[in-house]
Amino acid sequence: MIKIKHLVVIGTGLIGGSFALALKRQGRVERVTGVGRSRANLEQALKLGIIDAIGEHAAAAVKDADLVLAAIPVSAMPALFRELAETLPAGALLTDAGSTKRDVIAAARAALGGKIGQFIPGHPIAGAESNGAGAARAHLFKDKPVILTPQPENRAEDVDRIESLWAACGAHVARMNEADHDRVFAAVSHLPHLAAFALMEELAERQDADTFFRFAGSGFRDFTRIAGSHPEMWRDIALANRDALLGELDAYIDKLEAIRGLIEARDGQALEALFARARQARHNWIKGKHT
Amino acid sequence: MIKIKHLVVIGTGLIGGSFALALKRQGRVERVTGVGRSRANLEQALKLGIIDAIGEHAAAAVKDADLVLAAIPVSAMPALFRELAETLPAGALLTDAGSTKRDVIAAARAALGGKIGQFIPGHPIAGAESNGAGAARAHLFKDKPVILTPQPENRAEDVDRIESLWAACGAHVARMNEADHDRVFAAVSHLPHLAAFALMEELAERQDADTFFRFAGSGFRDFTRIAGSHPEMWRDIALANRDALLGELDAYIDKLEAIRGLIEARDGQALEALFARARQARHNWIKGKHT
Repeated sequence: MIKIKHLVVIGTGLIGGSFALALKRQGRVERVTGVGRSRANLEQALKLGIIDAIGEHAAAAVKDADLVLAAIPVSAMPALFRELAETLPAGALLTDAGSTKRDVIAAARAALGGKIGQFIPGHPIAGAESNGAGAARAHLFKDKPVILTPQPENRAEDVDRIESLWAACGAHVARMNEADHDRVFAAVSHLPHLAAFALMEELAERQDADTFFRFAGSGFRDFTRIAGSHPEMWRDIALANRDALLGELDAYIDKLEAIRGLIEARDGQALEALFARARQARHNWIKGKHT
Repeated sequence: MIKIKHLVVIGTGLIGGSFALALKRQGRVERVTGVGRSRANLEQALKLGIIDAIGEHAAAAVKDADLVLAAIPVSAMPALFRELAETLPAGALLTDAGSTKRDVIAAARAALGGKIGQFIPGHPIAGAESNGAGAARAHLFKDKPVILTPQPENRAEDVDRIESLWAACGAHVARMNEADHDRVFAAVSHLPHLAAFALMEELAERQDADTFFRFAGSGFRDFTRIAGSHPEMWRDIALANRDALLGELDAYIDKLEAIRGLIEARDGQALEALFARARQARHNWIKGKHT
């Protein structure tokens, strides 16, 4: 059983805090140090037993770490990697929880030099509208997917170690290359977020917005739930996954234009067939999730 | 207290069946006759006590009715109105549960002639993915909105009667003109349905669709929930509310294109501001719903 002596969590929010809590509960870690930009959040994490000590600076905190998790917005990764490049010990592994992978890997390559083999990129799929150490839960990753996108420089046993730690948190770990990762999440996560933000913004900026919102019901509520997500995080994701997301936006707009064309042409048969295919696809997906 | 001697429900599914059940529970109706295209559904409605008798033909069934509810797909309304035009008694009121109002009103005007004043158009907002008499519930309309779109030929006391019956079902009744109704629901209901159908269809038709669906999570699930809705019903709505919906689709596609432009230009500041406005608008809406 893999056991960590000293885990350093950079960013002790929902994801970083839950990772520390889960490993503690499983007896997989002896000591956790938290590093972050909000002193109040770190003190809460300490009080809640998520971390055992606060590290003032990432570079110093990792000096005797055997595992470092970077659970910060993807736009903050490049500066962090530069900070860690010198002090990350030869025996330590570094992983991350970034929602995009190509940009994070590029930043790691640019900063870490010969230590790139110690960086095993990851992405736990367990977002939520809540954030901060107070939202962290030991069971957050139970039955949730975690994607690893290993690099040619990684040692196989190191990738297995990271995988087994996520598995100890209850997660289902999958591996894929970073381009596939970014393409898949652009389609099933990033695009729907943009589509929900777009609808809220489009209605909210109308003069008579109140008339519309007054009669919005449960379908609207569920469709727009993800528009409650964190603006800064989604700005970062939109920019970090720019190329894949532009392609997904184009495909989605094309499909909406196609539906528009069917409505304009009053083609009821084609509309019904399209709606039926979409409904069937969703039915199959939901069914697959529960078998 | 308004009491109905003989209610005829054309279409004894979720909406029609729930209306009958609610009025029965409130002691507002003596006798209910159901008319519909599915014999099996009508027999189930009879067995469940939703209706007291099955009417073979709408024209004959309404002959001694004092209230008729048309709860059928909007595309079936014109033929129904033609069928009822001759036999609808002078003292009876006719109302409907169609999701669009301009087209239903136009069909009623074309068919009912001098009886148009007896038709009080309505729209209960209580859709669900389930349907049929088996899904009907006496409390379905509790705290749900019902929109009436009265016509110049309606008598004020007749509109009040219909309003008081929906209120007896627990609904909150609002009145607006039919153009406003169709514009509002195009934006907050019809467009989101199309947007959810579009995303499912766009992914499902890909060669490697399984790879995408495999990693779709809870955000995707909620965003696409309404893509589980009934294809025939939504075909009808898309065609019946064509003009308003084309306008809403254009506005939505424009907003998606604007977001696309910001991502392409890497304008992080404008993206974050837009996401923040959208999030705030949703927060205000949810808060308003619960106060």
